[in-house]
Amino acid sequence: MSSNYQDPVELEKIRHSAEHVLTQAMLRLFPGKFVMAMGPATADGFYFDFEPLSGFKVNDSDFTAIEAEMAKIIKEDLPISQEFITSQQARQLFSDNQYKAEWIDQIESRGEKISVYRTGNDFVDLCAGPHVSSTGKIKAFKLLSIAGAYWHGDAKNKMLTRIYGTAFQTVDQLKQYLENIEEAQKRDHRKLGKDLDLFSIDESVGPGLILWHPKLSIVREEIELYWRREHRRRGYQYVYTPHLGQSNLWQTSGHLQTFKDGLFPPMSMKSKDEHEDTTYFVKPMSCPFHIRIYQSRPRSYRELPLRWCELGSVYRYEESGVLHGMLRVRGFTQDDAHIICREDQFVEEVNRILDFALDMNKAFGFEHLNVYLSLRDPKNQDKYIGEEKIWQLAENTLEDILQKRQIDYKKDIGGAKFYGPAIDLKAVDGMGREWQGTTIQLDMNEPLRFNMKYIGADGQEHTPIMLHRTLLGSMERFVGTLIEHYAGAFPLWLAPTQVVIIPISEKQIAYARQVEQLLLAKDVRVEVDDRSETMQNKIRNATAQKIPYMLIVGNREAESGSVSVRQRDGQDLGQMDSNEFTSKIGQQIASKSVNLLK
Amino acid sequence: MSSNYQDPVELEKIRHSAEHVLTQAMLRLFPGKFVMAMGPATADGFYFDFEPLSGFKVNDSDFTAIEAEMAKIIKEDLPISQEFITSQQARQLFSDNQYKAEWIDQIESRGEKISVYRTGNDFVDLCAGPHVSSTGKIKAFKLLSIAGAYWHGDAKNKMLTRIYGTAFQTVDQLKQYLENIEEAQKRDHRKLGKDLDLFSIDESVGPGLILWHPKLSIVREEIELYWRREHRRRGYQYVYTPHLGQSNLWQTSGHLQTFKDGLFPPMSMKSKDEHEDTTYFVKPMSCPFHIRIYQSRPRSYRELPLRWCELGSVYRYEESGVLHGMLRVRGFTQDDAHIICREDQFVEEVNRILDFALDMNKAFGFEHLNVYLSLRDPKNQDKYIGEEKIWQLAENTLEDILQKRQIDYKKDIGGAKFYGPAIDLKAVDGMGREWQGTTIQLDMNEPLRFNMKYIGADGQEHTPIMLHRTLLGSMERFVGTLIEHYAGAFPLWLAPTQVVIIPISEKQIAYARQVEQLLLAKDVRVEVDDRSETMQNKIRNATAQKIPYMLIVGNREAESGSVSVRQRDGQDLGQMDSNEFTSKIGQQIASKSVNLLK
Repeated sequence: MSSNYQDPVELEKIRHSAEHVLTQAMLRLFPGKFVMAMGPATADGFYFDFEPLSGFKVNDSDFTAIEAEMAKIIKEDLPISQEFITSQQARQLFSDNQYKAEWIDQIESRGEKISVYRTGNDFVDLCAGPHVSSTGKIKAFKLLSIAGAYWHGDAKNKMLTRIYGTAFQTVDQLKQYLENIEEAQKRDHRKLGKDLDLFSIDESVGPGLILWHPKLSIVREEIELYWRREHRRRGYQYVYTPHLGQSNLWQTSGHLQTFKDGLFPPMSMKSKDEHEDTTYFVKPMSCPFHIRIYQSRPRSYRELPLRWCELGSVYRYEESGVLHGMLRVRGFTQDDAHIICREDQFVEEVNRILDFALDMNKAFGFEHLNVYLSLRDPKNQDKYIGEEKIWQLAENTLEDILQKRQIDYKKDIGGAKFYGPAIDLKAVDGMGREWQGTTIQLDMNEPLRFNMKYIGADGQEHTPIMLHRTLLGSMERFVGTLIEHYAGAFPLWLAPTQVVIIPISEKQIAYARQVEQLLLAKDVRVEVDDRSETMQNKIRNATAQKIPYMLIVGNREAESGSVSVRQRDGQDLGQMDSNEFTSKIGQQIASKSVNLLK
Repeated sequence: MSSNYQDPVELEKIRHSAEHVLTQAMLRLFPGKFVMAMGPATADGFYFDFEPLSGFKVNDSDFTAIEAEMAKIIKEDLPISQEFITSQQARQLFSDNQYKAEWIDQIESRGEKISVYRTGNDFVDLCAGPHVSSTGKIKAFKLLSIAGAYWHGDAKNKMLTRIYGTAFQTVDQLKQYLENIEEAQKRDHRKLGKDLDLFSIDESVGPGLILWHPKLSIVREEIELYWRREHRRRGYQYVYTPHLGQSNLWQTSGHLQTFKDGLFPPMSMKSKDEHEDTTYFVKPMSCPFHIRIYQSRPRSYRELPLRWCELGSVYRYEESGVLHGMLRVRGFTQDDAHIICREDQFVEEVNRILDFALDMNKAFGFEHLNVYLSLRDPKNQDKYIGEEKIWQLAENTLEDILQKRQIDYKKDIGGAKFYGPAIDLKAVDGMGREWQGTTIQLDMNEPLRFNMKYIGADGQEHTPIMLHRTLLGSMERFVGTLIEHYAGAFPLWLAPTQVVIIPISEKQIAYARQVEQLLLAKDVRVEVDDRSETMQNKIRNATAQKIPYMLIVGNREAESGSVSVRQRDGQDLGQMDSNEFTSKIGQQIASKSVNLLK
């Protein structure tokens, strides 16, 4: 939900300085009542953590006063300046602050210089910066919320108070941001998931595990059917593999070495049968299974490339604190595929996947994609398996492909998987938010670890190259994204209920059933609302349920064999012959259009 | 693979007596060279376990001599008679046999009488019988194989030698049985699975876990697509649920109490996060998840019946020794559904499922079904949850439904699930073998345990009734069954490759590609065999791969825009216009016929 893709340096300075202004304002308003702990800029704004002293309490009703004081400091346009001091000076300056003392220890132990920033004459903080040159540069800010937060995020430490805020270069940007927050709350898939009976997360099942209710299962099934057909047409073959595998499989793949934190706990078979002294893990990825299918018989260069896809459900341990509805989960179904190919084939295969990914995203209304080249973090080499020269080759080749296609991309240092670099496409929704979807990973390491081979045209054994890829990412995250992107109003072809027929009175129920049969015969998902409610209530209900079309049928319609068509956006398409409507909606569903009828 | 549905009492006597005759023959041929251990009749014949003494070895080349001696004993028509003796007499009689001594201890500890059976004057064995009255009653027998077997099946005990054989009332029955064995070996899905590249079981993944290769995945996908469409048409809604659930879920459902042996070992989350002190289990069934979806909001009587289906992958621990290809596995995908309904609805719902099941089995070529009413085992009450009166009601109601439909059924005592009785349909294949498929389980217990409710027309809370059902059973077992039933020659609509085009020489490859495009446009799964092999080799290969149609194209066909059509059964359909063939095969695929063109 971060708004990337703008140069963040200036924004970060403004936000960090706004945090200093917040602290300064509070010191002016509440001197001696709290101890400042820390406060960084974040992707969306800033926050300030402090320890309230005996009995002192701040709540959001104080925001107006604090914001007023902040505005005053900004109006004063006080200069902000950096100064390097000795650790002795620093200790003296922050002698009554244990939090700062801890920071000073850390900076000292790293052998770094100690920097402080001053704002005007009455504020100083231990800070590495950078900051804007004066408070007047902060053109727009707002305090957002207040919460408790443990020092260093550790529940063993003291609970501090945290104030969240944000700041921007212009008032318009702030306004836009606040509108977006409000809009995002309306579109929140967790709220819509409940309102529209789409999914639930059940505490007796477990956090991060999604129960797909019937309505959302229709959306998923339509996506899967489309996905499968497109894959067949593009030369993919489907496979099915289990959700468990023995530890030696994960040993070979390297998961036990580099992905252990992400694994669910082991299942020890010894408790079942002492002869079967092994452990099983639920799969965090499907690749080792596809590799073992490949290795179930000898392979020839003539068979390659093999394109094997699977809607594979995988399970990964995540801290319960970071889980977020369908967007950050512990169990998810990847729209996975592995392309096993020769060295002379993989550049074309990467390009084919890129084409496929662009088409696939477009089909769901995501025209704008941000492209990232995900590389190793050179500071964290033990996170990766494989040799340096193979990594360099893999990274350079992916970059070359992007450059040849003249695609605008950013490098994501540290974004590589443990077995290879990747091209990642992030869909941008109507609110400018980015959503992780397509990933194309080039893997020259797993084939070596598993000792995968094919017999080449030369009669010799060769090692193939493997591509791992998802187009949508996972069904959970992608459908969660769709809910937010469309605010629950799915495109017609995905809508759980596509049409509701609303008889004005009981007299038209028989006719409504006739129209229902017409639509059912064309596999349209249709309901008749035959409750004894007013028409207005039925329309209100169907609109709230985001059903694309409402067909109002009264005497006039029943007599003429027609329907009065109303869209969920309130637009009235007027009276239409019921056969004509059936034919039109049939075409529109088949076209998978993301728009309603005009 | 047992041939049930004939009165087994007589057959069991014959087989048990044949086993005594085998022992007697061996005692005559090899006196003092072995110690007899045990030997029962089985569903398919009998076996005899013995301990060879110093250096003595029997192998199947000895079968002719043993069978000759057995024939002699049968010709002698020796009387077989039972005698009850004291344990003291028994110990004296078998004083040199530790195995019999162990049996005698056991019989004594149970307080039962000790029975021996004598055959003529020179053979006696400790045996409860029953047996035929004389050896002449054994009209047909054969020794089949020899193997090692641990005493009591326990690897800690001594390894004995086991001879397998079978016996029948008539020579024709034996002949038929032996032919069936031979045919069964040809149809063995494990052999065909390898020959046709359909699936594998990988030791690094784990026993009982199936890797579906691309070809068999096509078969599965076609089945799933058909299955899903039929479910939608019959008023089912699809749901998706996770493969893991917390222990308290399985506590509530009763699985931890009555299904613990069948569960995979627990995953202890404490190792990940001490705050999350719970265990997870991979799901052995999907029902608790469907129940929790039901409970995610209040329900009204107007919503019922709810018919929720899922292709749910479940995992159950089975001893590695009983695993058998795709037919007995540890991981499988059930074609599951739960119908949640009112008391006044469930009889109709059971009948609807019965209709559905009959149609579904017929679609795959299973016209003959054996019907079982699966009831509790009264001797094993602690295997079940719930009250006596609810069980009686449930059992009686299912029986009543079968009787009203005038369905011929057998009772399967002990075949009930832990939560309720069931109607089970077993498909009978061309060889008379039975395959477990449809099960319809009536459950009045889980709704109580989970405290499921709906608001009735009276405004009061009521407990719904739940039906658990599968139609095919599991994808693994059903597709394994299909492989054996069709000996790998799948009906056209399921065949992984439906058509192979065989150009006679390189000159017709271009034309072959044209025909391929015609067929691809109709979504026919077609390949061109453009290898530089002889036509005869290509036909042989396509026949071995059981591809329904081979289209031979030479100059004559290329010039006239036709194809010469050959079926995998060798039948030659002659020359046909390529458009005509495309249209015909398109119709045949759409019709899901289990027959080829005439």
